[in-house]
Amino acid sequence: MSCASQSAYRHIREYISRIAEYEPDIRAFAAYDAEDVHEQLSRIGETSEKTPLAGLALGVKDIIDALPYPTGSGSPLHRGTRPARDAAAVAQLRAAGAVVMGKTVTTEFAFFSPGPTRNPHDPARTPGGSSSGSAAAVAAGFIDAGLGSQTAASITRPASYCGVVGFKPSFGSYSLAGAGGLAPSFDTLGVLSKDVTTAAAIHSVLAGPVPAAPVSGAQPPLRIGLCQTPWWDQAQPATRDVMTLAEKAFSAGALVETIDLSAFAEGARLHAGIMAFEAAQTLAAELATQPEGLSPVLRAMLASGMKTDRADHRQNLRQAADLRDRIAGVFDRYDLLLAPAAPGEAPAGLDATGDPIFSRLWSLLHLPTITLPGFTGPAGMPVGIQLLAGLNQDEKLLSHALWAEKLLPVPARPPSLKKPEHLG
Amino acid sequence: MSCASQSAYRHIREYISRIAEYEPDIRAFAAYDAEDVHEQLSRIGETSEKTPLAGLALGVKDIIDALPYPTGSGSPLHRGTRPARDAAAVAQLRAAGAVVMGKTVTTEFAFFSPGPTRNPHDPARTPGGSSSGSAAAVAAGFIDAGLGSQTAASITRPASYCGVVGFKPSFGSYSLAGAGGLAPSFDTLGVLSKDVTTAAAIHSVLAGPVPAAPVSGAQPPLRIGLCQTPWWDQAQPATRDVMTLAEKAFSAGALVETIDLSAFAEGARLHAGIMAFEAAQTLAAELATQPEGLSPVLRAMLASGMKTDRADHRQNLRQAADLRDRIAGVFDRYDLLLAPAAPGEAPAGLDATGDPIFSRLWSLLHLPTITLPGFTGPAGMPVGIQLLAGLNQDEKLLSHALWAEKLLPVPARPPSLKKPEHLG
Repeated sequence: MSCASQSAYRHIREYISRIAEYEPDIRAFAAYDAEDVHEQLSRIGETSEKTPLAGLALGVKDIIDALPYPTGSGSPLHRGTRPARDAAAVAQLRAAGAVVMGKTVTTEFAFFSPGPTRNPHDPARTPGGSSSGSAAAVAAGFIDAGLGSQTAASITRPASYCGVVGFKPSFGSYSLAGAGGLAPSFDTLGVLSKDVTTAAAIHSVLAGPVPAAPVSGAQPPLRIGLCQTPWWDQAQPATRDVMTLAEKAFSAGALVETIDLSAFAEGARLHAGIMAFEAAQTLAAELATQPEGLSPVLRAMLASGMKTDRADHRQNLRQAADLRDRIAGVFDRYDLLLAPAAPGEAPAGLDATGDPIFSRLWSLLHLPTITLPGFTGPAGMPVGIQLLAGLNQDEKLLSHALWAEKLLPVPARPPSLKKPEHLG
Repeated sequence: MSCASQSAYRHIREYISRIAEYEPDIRAFAAYDAEDVHEQLSRIGETSEKTPLAGLALGVKDIIDALPYPTGSGSPLHRGTRPARDAAAVAQLRAAGAVVMGKTVTTEFAFFSPGPTRNPHDPARTPGGSSSGSAAAVAAGFIDAGLGSQTAASITRPASYCGVVGFKPSFGSYSLAGAGGLAPSFDTLGVLSKDVTTAAAIHSVLAGPVPAAPVSGAQPPLRIGLCQTPWWDQAQPATRDVMTLAEKAFSAGALVETIDLSAFAEGARLHAGIMAFEAAQTLAAELATQPEGLSPVLRAMLASGMKTDRADHRQNLRQAADLRDRIAGVFDRYDLLLAPAAPGEAPAGLDATGDPIFSRLWSLLHLPTITLPGFTGPAGMPVGIQLLAGLNQDEKLLSHALWAEKLLPVPARPPSLKKPEHLG
């Protein structure tokens, strides 16, 4: 084994001992097999060390197939489901050198009903959802990055609550083959990671059939549109303060102007309506055979979808397409939008994962979005900010995020957890 | 068992004996288990007879999960893959009373490399692809309808070659959960069936989370746009003649005007480019682990996708979106478009499935399309015509197709096969 391999090995060994120590408290993993991780490490020497993600410790949200694990999808109905092969995205990341550390907890079918995961910053609070385990595992220092997915707010919100980077690319960018979906108009794979560079490295592998050079240069934007969104009345003081702080930080290097998107206020309703209709189609097999195995909160959403008239659904789709056309013009003037990532700090309790309201519009619009950590609220919990760019301007967004990351405070580590040794 | 159940039972018993007699020649099924069919029949009395598809004999393309069968996807790499549950669409059709007769042959991953299926009208000719088995099984009188899927031309072309109805709804209409895809920008489930009424009945079940009333009234269109397409030079005399005959037939009840879509000539190239790029993402796991198990024709397409620059891919996506916006205006003036379904009769030989050129543009544009049989070419083989409506005008298309169906000749049965008894 070469020096580079040995270094990758050491790095992951530290994660393994950290998982052994803290995972019983955090419960970020739906399935974790230390033997399988060692088995992957033993093969590192066989592959080229020039692979772009060599030694990257990856968690995989448990709606995404990854051998040798079952894909449980956070539902008793899918417990023990054995995939025949890796999801396409997992295969791409493995081929690029990533080591699959395990399957991370998802809410039930990536909707609202939570798993057992706790927020590493306060185990009495939700990590957010639905990519709960990937966000918590990054925050806890178990992995470098976790695959997540977003249909409404399932990357942005847990990233904000757990104080990690959350990147959702433009709709359609990464393959969903081998990943369970909920609403095909919105379902998008993405990344929870410790920093923007790691998200950019993963993006460089997943956004096409062959790896590209990752975005590495920090580019300041010229103009940032500060968008409180039509749901600003639902922003708590923590989020309001953080938006002011971010505005201040970014004003040093860019022009920040307040923009009014009240013309997009229908976006949240359209998103919820389309999602419910499509989810009730997606889960037809489960509804037909074991409806009693679905949680009440999921059944309520599906019931709402089943009551939606087809003509109304198509009207929703048309209005969504109109809003997508209209948002394009905003990015002629602004390089970035700055928006709230969540209503506030992670709510207390583990029986719900928080409100998706500050992401529904952006998910409807298919825009790439990145959530950056750094700020904290009155309870000392992380509060993220969200940056957005125009459709398929993912690399532009990442280069601006590298710039923005430097202007924000260094994210606080979970107070009850030791700092991982390899992070210095 | 009630009278209605007994009638459903008799109907399917005839299919079973027909399959026993002719399937060894046609080879429409990738998997067929007569015991499982009998088992389903034995349970018919237990369910309501008011279900909208009671007793419908259904074939399921072998990229779509249906218990108790494996999902082979026409590839040695997927042979024997066991799904944990039915695909959503299969669950919806079962809940509506359909009986799953078996899995129908697909080309390799629904691309070009053919399976063993023969055209029932001439066993020395291709049935077309990729929904080869569903089209051939309907033509042979083995099933009432088959689920198919279309990424390029995989419903329209086999429908035309086998002389059956092929209906592809608007993109996004039916759930793809549990169905293997190839290019998510285009993948769409649809139906091969013996007549428009059967396609409309299936559409009423699949186009939403709960069944709706099926389209049943034949509505004449006011204006039909006759569209030779920018690829008319590739239309053989058989297709040219059939377009003239269809124009004549429809002119009795509607205004038929020739329209020029030369502004859409880039559509075929854009479609092929996007499809190759996305397919190479979709098949990442197979490419990473067993590339030698992929056919040369598939590997060549994937290689072209892997050579496509990401910036070029996004440019393709933008141009596709522009063309979708532009086609909408055409349907302000025309209720329907009439277009070729395929270059001509089914080509001789079983080593290829024909050219998708006359469907690429429509698949790119996400439009609903229906192929109608009735006409034949100089070799006596079926030659279909294609009718299209605007995005999400699926029910309008079906009601016009019911009208059109009556104006076309009654499709000829495969000469070498006996007429099914229950068809009178």
